[in-house]
Amino acid sequence: MRVGKFITLEGGEGVGKTTSLNFIQAYLKAQGVDLLVTREPGGTPFAEKIRNVLLEPCTEKVAVDTELLLMFASRAQHLAELIKPAIKIGQWVLCSRFTDSTYAYQGGGRGVAFERIRALEQWVHDDFQPDLTLYFDLPVEVGMARARARGELDRIEQENLAFFERVRQAYLQRAKESSRYRIIDASQSIEQVQEQIASIFNETSLLGFC
Amino acid sequence: MRVGKFITLEGGEGVGKTTSLNFIQAYLKAQGVDLLVTREPGGTPFAEKIRNVLLEPCTEKVAVDTELLLMFASRAQHLAELIKPAIKIGQWVLCSRFTDSTYAYQGGGRGVAFERIRALEQWVHDDFQPDLTLYFDLPVEVGMARARARGELDRIEQENLAFFERVRQAYLQRAKESSRYRIIDASQSIEQVQEQIASIFNETSLLGFC
Repeated sequence: MRVGKFITLEGGEGVGKTTSLNFIQAYLKAQGVDLLVTREPGGTPFAEKIRNVLLEPCTEKVAVDTELLLMFASRAQHLAELIKPAIKIGQWVLCSRFTDSTYAYQGGGRGVAFERIRALEQWVHDDFQPDLTLYFDLPVEVGMARARARGELDRIEQENLAFFERVRQAYLQRAKESSRYRIIDASQSIEQVQEQIASIFNETSLLGFC
Repeated sequence: MRVGKFITLEGGEGVGKTTSLNFIQAYLKAQGVDLLVTREPGGTPFAEKIRNVLLEPCTEKVAVDTELLLMFASRAQHLAELIKPAIKIGQWVLCSRFTDSTYAYQGGGRGVAFERIRALEQWVHDDFQPDLTLYFDLPVEVGMARARARGELDRIEQENLAFFERVRQAYLQRAKESSRYRIIDASQSIEQVQEQIASIFNETSLLGFC
């Protein structure tokens, strides 16, 4: 049985997910929500080990199938040991990145057929989906410039602009097709972004449950 | 196109796979076979990183789905970067453990439905199967006593006898159902085991190709 809510944040590099995550955390706590904040890939010590294997720069070519299976291995662990138990006892889970990232990066970015990702999604979590997904949208050049300013890029971030453009288009396509998605214009000021987030929580019925 | 041959060694703990692997290596080289010897999980530097995550003792409970996805992640990398390229240029590949181990340990041992494993097998390598699988069979107590004498047991080896009995039964069941399997009685002397292996290579048509 599902008591708590599952909210995911999605978006490309440098769209301000972390800043918004901190805002949402404060906002929901002020509303009395018992909130657990986590991220993917990773989220438990064992899943973080998988994250390290995935993101460490590496000289061996990593097959796209390998990357995809590692993403879902980390996710299976995160779901079994953290997300599902929390939601079951009524906590809300706020997660930076989830399966939508896999569709965007491995699907859109690396060109894996969506059906192939869908097969693993089904195998791992089937109809267990977020209640709400906030997608932070930003032109690729702007986001990459911000990410670059933050310091060294990891293995996946060392891709070119065309890759990230495909990532963005995959996100936008999925956002169009799903009612759980809300698109946030990340080119706005921080204040405007936060207002938009607050209004999304007000207009959705999510807070009615807490 | 598939030019080389793909041979796998399977069996529980302490059945003498390594000793036999060394014998087969020498035997096939003497027949002029260009042979590559490898193992699972692992087989490439990146796949070995996944192996380490899988086998290191760990306090967090590892979900069975996580373990299964990591096994296949390692396998996808091994296939893409080592096994398939080798076979393509005419090398033979001798591999200690492959997907049959997943059926035996995660399926038989941990109770994952074979259909669930079959779905991942299909996703990763479908009809790319070994040409020959040598299964070393031994009563569980004998094998475990041998493995224990070798030193510390890894996370998967720290299971109880009932687990390994289920592993053995899963192997035997698969051996019955597939023409690529040959069962070797590992309770025989080393010399008898080696004679049996040599006669298997003679009776199968594999060496006719080299």
